[in-house]
Amino acid sequence: MEPPAGPARIPLSARVAAEFIGTAALVAVVVGSGIQATELSNDVGVQLLANALATVFGLGVLIALFGPVSGAHFNPVVTLAEWWTQRRAGREGVTTRELPAYLAAQFTGAVGGAILADAMFDLPLVEWSAKDRDAGHLLLAEVVATAGLIMLIFGLARTARLHFAPVAVASYIGAAYWFTSSTSFANPAVTVGRAFSDTFAGIAPGSVPGFIAAQLVGAVVGLGLVAVVFVRTRKAAV
Amino acid sequence: MEPPAGPARIPLSARVAAEFIGTAALVAVVVGSGIQATELSNDVGVQLLANALATVFGLGVLIALFGPVSGAHFNPVVTLAEWWTQRRAGREGVTTRELPAYLAAQFTGAVGGAILADAMFDLPLVEWSAKDRDAGHLLLAEVVATAGLIMLIFGLARTARLHFAPVAVASYIGAAYWFTSSTSFANPAVTVGRAFSDTFAGIAPGSVPGFIAAQLVGAVVGLGLVAVVFVRTRKAAV
Amino acid sequence: MEPPAGPARIPLSARVAAEFIGTAALVAVVVGSGIQATELSNDVGVQLLANALATVFGLGVLIALFGPVSGAHFNPVVTLAEWWTQRRAGREGVTTRELPAYLAAQFTGAVGGAILADAMFDLPLVEWSAKDRDAGHLLLAEVVATAGLIMLIFGLARTARLHFAPVAVASYIGAAYWFTSSTSFANPAVTVGRAFSDTFAGIAPGSVPGFIAAQLVGAVVGLGLVAVVFVRTRKAAV
Amino acid sequence: MEPPAGPARIPLSARVAAEFIGTAALVAVVVGSGIQATELSNDVGVQLLANALATVFGLGVLIALFGPVSGAHFNPVVTLAEWWTQRRAGREGVTTRELPAYLAAQFTGAVGGAILADAMFDLPLVEWSAKDRDAGHLLLAEVVATAGLIMLIFGLARTARLHFAPVAVASYIGAAYWFTSSTSFANPAVTVGRAFSDTFAGIAPGSVPGFIAAQLVGAVVGLGLVAVVFVRTRKAAV
Repeated sequence: MEPPAGPARIPLSARVAAEFIGTAALVAVVVGSGIQATELSNDVGVQLLANALATVFGLGVLIALFGPVSGAHFNPVVTLAEWWTQRRAGREGVTTRELPAYLAAQFTGAVGGAILADAMFDLPLVEWSAKDRDAGHLLLAEVVATAGLIMLIFGLARTARLHFAPVAVASYIGAAYWFTSSTSFANPAVTVGRAFSDTFAGIAPGSVPGFIAAQLVGAVVGLGLVAVVFVRTRKAAV
Repeated sequence: MEPPAGPARIPLSARVAAEFIGTAALVAVVVGSGIQATELSNDVGVQLLANALATVFGLGVLIALFGPVSGAHFNPVVTLAEWWTQRRAGREGVTTRELPAYLAAQFTGAVGGAILADAMFDLPLVEWSAKDRDAGHLLLAEVVATAGLIMLIFGLARTARLHFAPVAVASYIGAAYWFTSSTSFANPAVTVGRAFSDTFAGIAPGSVPGFIAAQLVGAVVGLGLVAVVFVRTRKAAV
Repeated sequence: MEPPAGPARIPLSARVAAEFIGTAALVAVVVGSGIQATELSNDVGVQLLANALATVFGLGVLIALFGPVSGAHFNPVVTLAEWWTQRRAGREGVTTRELPAYLAAQFTGAVGGAILADAMFDLPLVEWSAKDRDAGHLLLAEVVATAGLIMLIFGLARTARLHFAPVAVASYIGAAYWFTSSTSFANPAVTVGRAFSDTFAGIAPGSVPGFIAAQLVGAVVGLGLVAVVFVRTRKAAV
Repeated sequence: MEPPAGPARIPLSARVAAEFIGTAALVAVVVGSGIQATELSNDVGVQLLANALATVFGLGVLIALFGPVSGAHFNPVVTLAEWWTQRRAGREGVTTRELPAYLAAQFTGAVGGAILADAMFDLPLVEWSAKDRDAGHLLLAEVVATAGLIMLIFGLARTARLHFAPVAVASYIGAAYWFTSSTSFANPAVTVGRAFSDTFAGIAPGSVPGFIAAQLVGAVVGLGLVAVVFVRTRKAAV
């Protein structure tokens, strides 16, 4: 048995560290910029502009930096979709054995990032968010947001253009902050992390399961869209 | 008869799916971000900033993702101009037979995108826009906006630099939101789609024909500018 | 006598058309977005954000599109600096004979662009700006802004990286809108064009000569900075 | 003794000039855009948006322009970290002998940039900032901001992707303005420079030592994170 080529050559410990640090940094950016924005402006439009732009900048950098190490998922839905896709294709990006370590790093990293953001702004380290996000149209928005994210990543992957991911995924999230009513969480780990901070970007713990369920549905929809649009042509198979 | 090379090798069904999904997503971004912006801010400048930035991010991603599949037109005026240009050049990008499928996908996609945006924001799925956009200077703006868009795309094409299109077209629209009085629709399908939502980005159905006529005029002007500036030199013909 | 290689192979008529259209479009973007911004927001900070972002997007696209045709100067100071630099280096980008055509295209294009912007916003086509910009610190700002622009363009040129110009020059202007007190005109043609519109981006005709003088001083300073920093090393001369 | 390859071939005088001009320009952008923003808007969120975007644009341009000359550090913490890393690796980017010249250029450039910004806005050339920034959570923010910056630069370096630095570092700072409570100084020279202007971006002289100490701690943390994530694999060593 040969070890798989490419990223898999990097020790699992380094890849898990990258997923932990990257997810923590992502949540620190999302939550921290939300806090700063609400402290500085009373115009909620300005607040979301700042929150969205900070996330675009931060997420793009994190994917660029950690992509060659761990794949820069920072998102259980992306890790699961890759694991599933690779298994069916007979290759192994994230193996079944590695899956729990990736997911654990993402969820714990997300919680750590929220706590770090609270600490930097001199707030209680953990305070459950009181922001209910239960309405049906918000769940539809999460399905759409996650479907778009998965369609983007796996569409780029199928056309061998994952090197566009830092700019493309960051830009996508920048748009999705605005065109979805939920402001596009699209990430179960980040959703859990956001529950730990009662600030602009928070979500009440009771709303978390609905969001995660919608995100999983969205991931399946996204993979379906990839199958419809990015058909394998004979030429590509040669 | 050899089948044409490149994109044409991709089945028409996949290309039409890309045009449908891409145009729907584009309108969902334009309309959805407009709704979010008006819900969050009372400053119309902030609203248009959010609307424009979301469109820049979203359009750039869509062109990058679907470009290799369908050419990522999402716009009947672009499809018509390509069909016309290619016919005169003796090559076939979008063939005469494929033209109706492209246009149908764009118009139906645009309407679907507006409905999806309304659904995500818990609004009536279809409500005709009441926003009259009839003034002559708005029509001039649409001529200018579309001429610039066509000049950009076909100027890049003639200098073999269409790989810049995702960033260049998205940036162009970002500028055109602001420097044209119409906020630059520049797209008949998107114009029709926007009529289906009585929100920030809407247009009254009665104003649609004038806008589309101005866009067609603009496309002709744009191709004329390309002919003046991007002259074919002997060197390029070798 | 061999004709010079590269851009010079393109007929002067096409290059002049590119300079005319490009400068007109640039001024239309600057003036038009300024008008739109003041119509939509009462917050001057939001107005300048919109004005600056529209200019960044528009200028980047124009340089990318027209660069391979005319060099995409759109600015007499850049044309003069290139003419001077190339002459001293014994090559000819813009020749002495071509110089008047370039400058004429830039100044007439700038005026045309201001008129087009006014037309798109249903304003008097020509109305002299009443905005005095005479203070000494504004002239210092124009020296700094133009020095930085020239240092950037000719520093990139001397290190053979002019392909970065679309993004780099647009980004530079985006910063210079904010860090200079004059909002960085840095361009004699654009300065003249802006005098034709009594709107946000305008400048009173009486303030134009001072601005142009400061820009010429800035260009000399910029070329001096290039000589200090981008020294020719023996390695580069090989 | 062979002279070292690459950047070191450039005379120290040119490299020091690049560090001086680059750091001065960076501080002029940070301080100047802060002054402009507070003059134009009363919404502090809009002010920080403008300040952050101007810095993103300006910093990206400066790194792109001066990178091939001096490495475009503009930051003593980066210079020290490179000196330390290179020494341990047995190569020499910035040598021990060159170190004082780099640091002197950065600190004097930063002060010069603040004075230039004040001059462009017709303010007293030197006025000590009265803005206390002493709270513990601000120091934590500086540790985090600097750790992230160092992790980014040296993570890119270890994976041979420093050509991403102009966009990546500028984007990082754009995010860090918002997600850290200190708005991310992350640079001892810039911190000193900002003390010379009693405006938006200023810092009281008494708060400077604490900020610099936090930045040095952050640099060490950042190098530690690099060691954990960017492990040297056997493959890379071949």
